[in-house]
Amino acid sequence: MLSPSASTFAAAEPALGPPRFELLTLGDELLLGLTANSHLTFIGTELGRRGVQLAHHATLSDGADDIAGQLRASWARGTVVILTGGLGPTCDDRTREAVAATLGEALVHDPAIERAIAERFARFGRPMTPNNRQQAMKFLRGEVLPNPHGTAPGLWLARDGRVLVLLPGPPNELRPMFADHVVPRLVRLGLLAEGEAYVQLRTAGIGESALETKLAPLFVPHGNALCVAYCAHEGFVDVRLSSPDGRLAFAQLEALAAMCAGLLGEDFLCHGRDSLAKICADLLRTRDKRLAVAEAATGGLLASAFSDLCGAHKFFAGGVVCCSNDAKVALLEVPECLLLQHGAVSEECAVAMATAAAERLGADYALAVTGSASPTGSVSPQSGSGDKADGGEENPLGAIYLALHTPHGAWAKKVCWPGARSTVKMRAVNAALDWLRRELLRT
Amino acid sequence: MLSPSASTFAAAEPALGPPRFELLTLGDELLLGLTANSHLTFIGTELGRRGVQLAHHATLSDGADDIAGQLRASWARGTVVILTGGLGPTCDDRTREAVAATLGEALVHDPAIERAIAERFARFGRPMTPNNRQQAMKFLRGEVLPNPHGTAPGLWLARDGRVLVLLPGPPNELRPMFADHVVPRLVRLGLLAEGEAYVQLRTAGIGESALETKLAPLFVPHGNALCVAYCAHEGFVDVRLSSPDGRLAFAQLEALAAMCAGLLGEDFLCHGRDSLAKICADLLRTRDKRLAVAEAATGGLLASAFSDLCGAHKFFAGGVVCCSNDAKVALLEVPECLLLQHGAVSEECAVAMATAAAERLGADYALAVTGSASPTGSVSPQSGSGDKADGGEENPLGAIYLALHTPHGAWAKKVCWPGARSTVKMRAVNAALDWLRRELLRT
Repeated sequence: MLSPSASTFAAAEPALGPPRFELLTLGDELLLGLTANSHLTFIGTELGRRGVQLAHHATLSDGADDIAGQLRASWARGTVVILTGGLGPTCDDRTREAVAATLGEALVHDPAIERAIAERFARFGRPMTPNNRQQAMKFLRGEVLPNPHGTAPGLWLARDGRVLVLLPGPPNELRPMFADHVVPRLVRLGLLAEGEAYVQLRTAGIGESALETKLAPLFVPHGNALCVAYCAHEGFVDVRLSSPDGRLAFAQLEALAAMCAGLLGEDFLCHGRDSLAKICADLLRTRDKRLAVAEAATGGLLASAFSDLCGAHKFFAGGVVCCSNDAKVALLEVPECLLLQHGAVSEECAVAMATAAAERLGADYALAVTGSASPTGSVSPQSGSGDKADGGEENPLGAIYLALHTPHGAWAKKVCWPGARSTVKMRAVNAALDWLRRELLRT
Repeated sequence: MLSPSASTFAAAEPALGPPRFELLTLGDELLLGLTANSHLTFIGTELGRRGVQLAHHATLSDGADDIAGQLRASWARGTVVILTGGLGPTCDDRTREAVAATLGEALVHDPAIERAIAERFARFGRPMTPNNRQQAMKFLRGEVLPNPHGTAPGLWLARDGRVLVLLPGPPNELRPMFADHVVPRLVRLGLLAEGEAYVQLRTAGIGESALETKLAPLFVPHGNALCVAYCAHEGFVDVRLSSPDGRLAFAQLEALAAMCAGLLGEDFLCHGRDSLAKICADLLRTRDKRLAVAEAATGGLLASAFSDLCGAHKFFAGGVVCCSNDAKVALLEVPECLLLQHGAVSEECAVAMATAAAERLGADYALAVTGSASPTGSVSPQSGSGDKADGGEENPLGAIYLALHTPHGAWAKKVCWPGARSTVKMRAVNAALDWLRRELLRT
């Protein structure tokens, strides 16, 4: 059933043309870089897969003037305006009031919201301080979006053929609220489709420019009916195919993506956005094999990539994180004489780690990563302390050895990337996974 | 030495008042949520600590019209306008051309840039495709910011008392370029200070609203000379003190922060932005103690938090990731009868894991995390597959057991949070670290 305000919307809709979505993320902490702005990623993805690309995104200060200025502009040109943040209990949470003042909406106290907040505090055994009450205000003509994961509910206002959505800042509150209460309302109003709107393929082992050069001939016949976009990540590149004016049907885009995949061979990872870990997990699962990992340079990230996946125990036997030589000996029984002769940052040590991890954990395959993820040129706050990351060995900065243990042998290789520690760690994780993937494809 | 264009800037500067910084991040992949927008976090932080809060941030489509419209607005009101992305070799990289057309600047081919790009391809043994040449264009009247980590250099243009900076999109290229070439130029022009501009303290174990209620009396005497902002993260809350109009000196802000710290007692983590892992590492280091970890639910994230720190081998003995019962037995010799009687998601198993990790790795302290990080309400793409994350045990969704092993005993406790898997994992990591921190403070 449409609410009265949604009917107002439906009545005004035909005059508006294609809906325009704008996202305004609020918070001085975003502009000061104190919190990563994950809302754009999340909301952009959820809208994008349903055929809407955000037309504009702005990050604003908590100040009421900034909110008023940008909201006025976005409200004038947008169909759906989504604001995030500034709904909490503290003095810098002014979104509700600023929006009400700008749009001339009345705010009223809602006893049901206050009750839900009080119950939440009681459930967690914490006292409810009086400043929490400001979260119980709602727009007189609007709807309340319940928040089972926090105190501040979301607010929904449909007026003048437009929709305004206010969402709380914490991602664990915003995300389920968006999925459970905002998307269904937008679909119901015909502002969002439910089907997928573009085709994406993921590649590895080929750079962005070489990839474009290789694929371009496939795209020529479609001229400007086809929109192609490339996006490089740490160790893989995505290609996105869409037809903005709809001249190419979805099935044609899919057929084109299948041709790309054929042309790319082993450099093709998947259609969609599966992680390398997910792809390896699927390959292991279908072969009924299990993987173990032993990490120094990546320090737990490789294991974490697998344990993020459901049912991990079926294909992931476990891992050890052994940054010091002592740990390599204690957990993996890497021979001390090997560490003395070759050092921990060596092909020999990498192979010993992989093989030991496989044996100890009863796994068919094992990946090992040893070395230093802290080259010169790093801008991480930890750089420059003079410590070595990997047991104090001397080794060219940034050199990492990967090893792959399989039922038919074990190999090591050296890799080396510039960049910050976190970048190098991510690249090492993805390079190891891609090696495993190619090996599994051949068996 | 100031370049000719920088002199132009200096001549026009006095008329401008306080400098206004705007950041425009370009890319359909950002609006579609395909890539996290880390540039706002990085550039916001770097500017914020030097006394500048970004006045505005917008994320734009790759389309030339969008770039022109927003750039015209930002250029009209801003002193420094920073654009990121769209400088690469592919057909959707149109920033250079769009900016030149909008501002009426001429683009010229720079043989030195092309040489550097060609050398980079040669060094990596990859063929240089012709589309790379568009990256060798620069503004006739501008400067080139070298890019040792990628192909596209940055571009710097100072004109009409304003600065325009174009930076490449990949974070590992943008970050060192910003630190090494943009910040020094802005400091030289007097647009950025070098000193810190606000005081931040970090807290744990107290919610945002209770924190404000507790600290508010300290702030009352300063009225609106003091600006206080709160920012909740997954397991800790930051408080930021600043004096926007400079009525409070930096030393007064520091004194106020010290009073907050005193009032908060053990709930005070640190001044600044150290991670809980860094704080624990420092406490371990000064006590000459080492930590081991054993993880199921957090699957490597706890180990990764430590191995991110330099010199980790001095205080971090290593870790094991054991999502399955088999791995708990193989790596930690957790007794099978214990697993049968109590299950893997139990206080008993958590304590056994922590103690075994400490013994096996010769550590003084150990943290263990066992349980499921996948409650209902999760919106992670992996949810709903019907698999259990932790060895297939039946257990209330989202229940996690933490254990802490110390030289004088071992304890376990149950924790439980709603939210997506990644949120719950992060909260579990931080809860475990905060427990260790409080224990170390008492010894």
